[in-house]
Amino acid sequence: MPKVTEDQLAARRGAILDAARRAFARHGYEGATVKVLEAETGLSRGAIFHHFRDKEALFLALAEDDAARTAATVAEYGLVQVMRDLREKDAGWLGVQLEVRRKLRTDPEFAERWAERQQQVRAATEERLVRQREAGVVRTDIPVPILADFLRLVLDGLVSSRATGMPVDHLDGVLDLVEDAVRTPSTVVR
Amino acid sequence: MPKVTEDQLAARRGAILDAARRAFARHGYEGATVKVLEAETGLSRGAIFHHFRDKEALFLALAEDDAARTAATVAEYGLVQVMRDLREKDAGWLGVQLEVRRKLRTDPEFAERWAERQQQVRAATEERLVRQREAGVVRTDIPVPILADFLRLVLDGLVSSRATGMPVDHLDGVLDLVEDAVRTPSTVVR
Repeated sequence: MPKVTEDQLAARRGAILDAARRAFARHGYEGATVKVLEAETGLSRGAIFHHFRDKEALFLALAEDDAARTAATVAEYGLVQVMRDLREKDAGWLGVQLEVRRKLRTDPEFAERWAERQQQVRAATEERLVRQREAGVVRTDIPVPILADFLRLVLDGLVSSRATGMPVDHLDGVLDLVEDAVRTPSTVVR
Repeated sequence: MPKVTEDQLAARRGAILDAARRAFARHGYEGATVKVLEAETGLSRGAIFHHFRDKEALFLALAEDDAARTAATVAEYGLVQVMRDLREKDAGWLGVQLEVRRKLRTDPEFAERWAERQQQVRAATEERLVRQREAGVVRTDIPVPILADFLRLVLDGLVSSRATGMPVDHLDGVLDLVEDAVRTPSTVVR
């Protein structure tokens, strides 16, 4: 029954990822030792590393998972929706984002692999902006790459604010303003 | 000659701050031990802690210094100018910003003191927005606190991008868009 085995493998892989996310969020990348990962997953290192080559591969899989989800949300609802969804993100997600940033500064190889993953979010953002522009919703007087960079900056600022516990007092108003800034002026009632 | 002595003290204090900035940027907050600070300043711990109560006071003085400069730039030229100036900031400044963020997450007392310092940047931002609004430059359809939050988010995103080595490809265009987003629509040629 190869189908069942595949489902089981996928479920096991997902369970490892969930547990690893908690471990990285709580202990940081270095602190999430193999021992910690074993305790959090309830599995032996052999079982864990049957699914992921090593700790870095496990961490990259998490980051990749986040990037894929983000790209999917962007494709359907746009990057501003990703910003709105940030309110619901738990400590595990934020913790992994922070570890990603720390590793970006200290590990050039990781930074390179991470940049590849981020390409899919960027591509999804630009594709959606192009579609929305063709639909007359997004402004045409500013090149799409500039609009995409702008949105990414605001998202970075939001993740950073949430992660450092600095609240954005007027988040809804700010996100409306951000959305407004990329829209066709005539579609906005001022 | 108390005047000369005061000048000398101020110069000594400034030299300690410059050296401490390099030490925190290079070694992080924990890594910048008293020994490291002595080596970097060329002064004894006695001389250093004559000017600053302890290491945290020294670090806070640096952060306060940055906040005061930022507030001054905001008052005269606005927060978008602070963003434009980020291009010229060196590794020392970015390093201290990163350490500030890390301490914000791990040290609630520091976070509280830091939030007080940030108040002056926020106040300067809002005051300038109010003045610019009275001058007809800033849009009146969105409350000033929302505009201020928006600008702070973008600044956070920029610091975060620079600090993690993720370039913003179209920075000039993005900053024009940010400036445009807080301006009175009729003053913008689209």
